[in-house]
Amino acid sequence: MNIILINPQELDGTGLAHLSGERAEHIRNTLRAVSGKELCIGLLNGSLGSGTVETVGSGMVTLRCVFEEEVPPRPAVDLLLALPRPKVMKRLWTQLAALGVGRIILTNAEKVERYYFDSHVLDPDFFTARLIEGLQQAGDTLLPEVQIVKQLKPFLEEELDRVFPEKGVRLLADPSGVQNVFQVFDKTNVSSKRTLLAIGPEGGWTPYELELFAAHGFRIFNAGPRILRTDTACIALLALLALHSSRT
Amino acid sequence: MNIILINPQELDGTGLAHLSGERAEHIRNTLRAVSGKELCIGLLNGSLGSGTVETVGSGMVTLRCVFEEEVPPRPAVDLLLALPRPKVMKRLWTQLAALGVGRIILTNAEKVERYYFDSHVLDPDFFTARLIEGLQQAGDTLLPEVQIVKQLKPFLEEELDRVFPEKGVRLLADPSGVQNVFQVFDKTNVSSKRTLLAIGPEGGWTPYELELFAAHGFRIFNAGPRILRTDTACIALLALLALHSSRT
Repeated sequence: MNIILINPQELDGTGLAHLSGERAEHIRNTLRAVSGKELCIGLLNGSLGSGTVETVGSGMVTLRCVFEEEVPPRPAVDLLLALPRPKVMKRLWTQLAALGVGRIILTNAEKVERYYFDSHVLDPDFFTARLIEGLQQAGDTLLPEVQIVKQLKPFLEEELDRVFPEKGVRLLADPSGVQNVFQVFDKTNVSSKRTLLAIGPEGGWTPYELELFAAHGFRIFNAGPRILRTDTACIALLALLALHSSRT
Repeated sequence: MNIILINPQELDGTGLAHLSGERAEHIRNTLRAVSGKELCIGLLNGSLGSGTVETVGSGMVTLRCVFEEEVPPRPAVDLLLALPRPKVMKRLWTQLAALGVGRIILTNAEKVERYYFDSHVLDPDFFTARLIEGLQQAGDTLLPEVQIVKQLKPFLEEELDRVFPEKGVRLLADPSGVQNVFQVFDKTNVSSKRTLLAIGPEGGWTPYELELFAAHGFRIFNAGPRILRTDTACIALLALLALHSSRT
C-alpha cells in the first residue's frame, strides 16, 4: 500500500476518517504509525491528499484528512479482454488497476468457455476489493469501470461507439498483424488519443472475430514472435501504452 | 504449451523421443494427437523442429523428431533482480522464461529479507521446471542461466564484468531517475546492444546501493509515475525491451 484509499462514506463532516480492517492493520502494524504521523491518502474516485493520524486503537485508526483540489487524470487506455480462466482473471484485477486502465470490458468469444462467466471473480464485491488493492499500490484513486459482455457481436455493433469514442485509437494484438506495435503507435499517433486495446483468449480470436474487429475500426498489430499468456500480454502491452503516452 | 520441449537424453539414436508425464498427457488429452500427427517441438537449449507422433499409449508418447539446423538466438536482455518474496518469485519464473531473458541474477539487497534465500523456489529442480513451462508457452528452447547472489557489493565489484560485457547497456529502474525509459533507450542505442536491467526490492534500493550501481555503469531511469509491484514491473520492462529490440 503506497497510499491509503478512503471511501467518501468513511469521512465525517469534520474531515475525520474512521478506518478499520486491513487498512487500520496496515497503518498500525506495517507502517507503525503513531499519533501525529502523516500518511499519503486518496479519496476513492477523488483527489489525493494527506492524512494525519489522530488515534490508533485496536482495529481502528482515525485520520484527519486534507485533500488536493485536482483529481488525478483518468488513464488514457481502455482494455477489451476476452475473459480468461478464473484463476488468471483473479490475479489480473489488481495488476490492471495498478497499471492504470480507464475501463475494463470483459467479453465472451468463440474460444472462451461459457462457465468462466459464472465465476466469483466477476462478482463486483470481489473485483472491487482487488481493484482498490491495485490503486493503493500504484498511488491512484480512480476505479476502472468494469463492463461484462456476454455477446461480442452485438456489443461491437451497437454499444462500442457509445462507450469508446470513434475518434480514439482501437488496437488489437494478434500474430496475424503485419505491423509491429511501434509502427502502429507511430501511425495512429497513439500518445495523444484515447486508446482501446483488445486482447484475445488463449486460443486466439477466430478469423470471423478478427474480421468483425477490423470492420469496427480495430488496427491489428503483432506483439512480437513470442506467444505470451493472456496475463503477461495484458501487463506488457498496457505498460507499453502507458509509458508511450507519458513520453509526450 | 505451444511447443513440446525435449531433453537431449530423451532422444534415442534413431531420432525417436519417448515422453511421459505432463507432456505425454498434454499430447494425448489436450492436443488429442493420434499417430501421424505433426507437433511443434524443440530440443532443450537446442533448435526447434517437428515431431511426428508414432505411438500414443497410456502415459507414454513416442515422437519421431526432426530438428532445424539453427538454434534460436539468445534473448538480448539479462535481468538483475532483488529477490522478491517467495510467493512472487514462484509465479515469476514462468513469465520470465516466456518473455525471454538470457540470464537471471537474483540478488540480496538491504531491503530483501534474508529468509527469502531459504525458500524452495530457489531450488534448481523447482525453477527449471517453471522455466521450461515458460519456454514451452513462448516457443523458445533456451533456458535462462540463473545465478544467485547473496552479497551485492562483491558481485558488482568482482563478478559483474565477467558475466555481463562492459560494452553492454546497464539500466536500473528507480523513481529517482531523471530520464524516462524511452529517453534512456534512445541515448544508449539499446536495441543494438546486450542489455542488463536491474529491478529493486519492493521497498526500493537504498541511496548507497544506487550509488554503487551508478559507479558500475548503470544508468538510472524512471519507469513512470505509478509504483508497480516487482512482478508487474519486471514483466512491463522486459516486454518493453524485447519489443524495442525487435523494432530494428
